[in-house]
Amino acid sequence: MRTSVPLAHAYRLLNHGPTTLVTTAHGGRRNVMAAAWVMPLDFEPPKFAAVVAADTFTRELLDAAGECVLQVPTTEQLQLTYDCGSRSGRDGDKFTALGIGTSAASLVAAPLVDGCAAWLECRVLAEPDLATRHDLFVLECVAAWADDRWWHNGEWQFAPAGPRSLHHLKGGVFFATGERLAAARPRRSS
Amino acid sequence: MRTSVPLAHAYRLLNHGPTTLVTTAHGGRRNVMAAAWVMPLDFEPPKFAAVVAADTFTRELLDAAGECVLQVPTTEQLQLTYDCGSRSGRDGDKFTALGIGTSAASLVAAPLVDGCAAWLECRVLAEPDLATRHDLFVLECVAAWADDRWWHNGEWQFAPAGPRSLHHLKGGVFFATGERLAAARPRRSS
Repeated sequence: MRTSVPLAHAYRLLNHGPTTLVTTAHGGRRNVMAAAWVMPLDFEPPKFAAVVAADTFTRELLDAAGECVLQVPTTEQLQLTYDCGSRSGRDGDKFTALGIGTSAASLVAAPLVDGCAAWLECRVLAEPDLATRHDLFVLECVAAWADDRWWHNGEWQFAPAGPRSLHHLKGGVFFATGERLAAARPRRSS
Repeated sequence: MRTSVPLAHAYRLLNHGPTTLVTTAHGGRRNVMAAAWVMPLDFEPPKFAAVVAADTFTRELLDAAGECVLQVPTTEQLQLTYDCGSRSGRDGDKFTALGIGTSAASLVAAPLVDGCAAWLECRVLAEPDLATRHDLFVLECVAAWADDRWWHNGEWQFAPAGPRSLHHLKGGVFFATGERLAAARPRRSS
């Protein structure tokens, strides 16, 4: 079930470096792409940095709308994630072609991809040189959600054999998020 | 054993979103910090984006030297990674305090932390507004290395029960990099 995540905790949704799906919508058109180059940039208000290449349909919609949703797909969405990253929305609506269900976001026009582990509704902050020079966008997260099957007490708690987030290596090869490891309290001397 | 990684493959060292250690050195002083907010930004020449907070000793050395090394610590370095992120080099040399062994880099003054899975020697590209506004640095990787125990044929190949890279969730809680999952060739229609 989708549960609201306090904005102060939004960075934790992406802090472990998962691959994302980025949805956009503008003027009756919509798109979804896979993006591994997304990371937190600030805690509160929560900001994120995302690379969106200049020649993509997502870039066109992102520039026009100034909004997007970052989502965290799971291992159940491995093929969907790779397929999203392997075709262009200019060749036809990917949601229809790939049978991707969506729900309405709360504050932005871009849709939420059903079945993901988290959703971050974002607005583009004006940084024009960054996009021109590095295809890099600074996003402010204005609403955040997670599926409470995997998000409890302000952190990811994936079951050992259940779905978990994805980390892209290259060309359709991903790593699942692995086991949880807790360090001891910091050593203060050697 | 440390093996050279072609620069065209350097992005793959961080594409799966692992937590990094950032080393810096300038004028006889050196430091190491943990940084989860690091990601690839371009393929070739390989560029990376990294967040380094304004009040850190690493920031002081990075601004002065214009160079750093990004490394990928392993699960064997869980405590070291957390400890590095939980104290300041201004309070004493962390390498000495934490017993961290180092080797010389090839092109930059910052040291390589022994025992890591990968090392990316980087130079800061001039983007002054970015650092001021977002604590964000654009780095060009000028030399890349990986330990051939875990890096073969241009990709990470962690053994099922062996050391692997780390992904920070929050406050000393990490995920290990999990199992490898390969998607099928992209579906071209639904």
